[in-house]
Amino acid sequence: MADSYEVAAVFRAELRRFLRRSEDCSRANGITPRQHLLLLQIAGAPSGVTTVSDLVNTLALTQSAVTELVQRAELAGLVERTPSPEDGRVVHLSLTQLGSEKLAAVHRALGPERAQLRRVMDSLKD
Amino acid sequence: MADSYEVAAVFRAELRRFLRRSEDCSRANGITPRQHLLLLQIAGAPSGVTTVSDLVNTLALTQSAVTELVQRAELAGLVERTPSPEDGRVVHLSLTQLGSEKLAAVHRALGPERAQLRRVMDSLKD
Repeated sequence: MADSYEVAAVFRAELRRFLRRSEDCSRANGITPRQHLLLLQIAGAPSGVTTVSDLVNTLALTQSAVTELVQRAELAGLVERTPSPEDGRVVHLSLTQLGSEKLAAVHRALGPERAQLRRVMDSLKD
Repeated sequence: MADSYEVAAVFRAELRRFLRRSEDCSRANGITPRQHLLLLQIAGAPSGVTTVSDLVNTLALTQSAVTELVQRAELAGLVERTPSPEDGRVVHLSLTQLGSEKLAAVHRALGPERAQLRRVMDSLKD
């Protein structure tokens, strides 16, 4: 990304549109924008297992914000908590069937938006 | 961007970190994150002039939110309003000296963050 204001302005404008559409899309599917990101970070974890500590990093939220987010998502039937087989003090998070379905619906609906963002970002490099 | 959860998760995590750092950087320079984006969209407008209507698009905010944002930025001495020479009902926005200095400081401080985001996004395409 070149260090000019014009390039940065186009990038930020496109990013705001993308994030706004992503938020609308989450709500249209009955979950909050933060729940969508939570589900995505759990489903997309390279190791296949996710802990609250991992989410503090990937969601850029505080420990207490992540804990509350996970509790609400559990109450909403979107995620499950299972004690780690190796260390009972550690809790692994995974998606329920409902959580998987919600994530898939939002992710699918956002496909064209991701493609559009990618096109704009590529065009800014030339 | 491939349509897999893992790629989307890495992208979103990096994006959240970038936006968090950008917000911290704005506040460290004595402006709000929204004021930073306002200054950037004014400075980066391809035509060199900006109206409230343009900002509704680029900031993805409502007309009333933009109007309030501009008023506060004017009070803070960051932006100036000038009637259009062609049409007195249209107001053109520009940065004051203080606004230009604040934007330059935040933009400079974010240089390494933009480079890092670019590297991650490029790596996701392979």
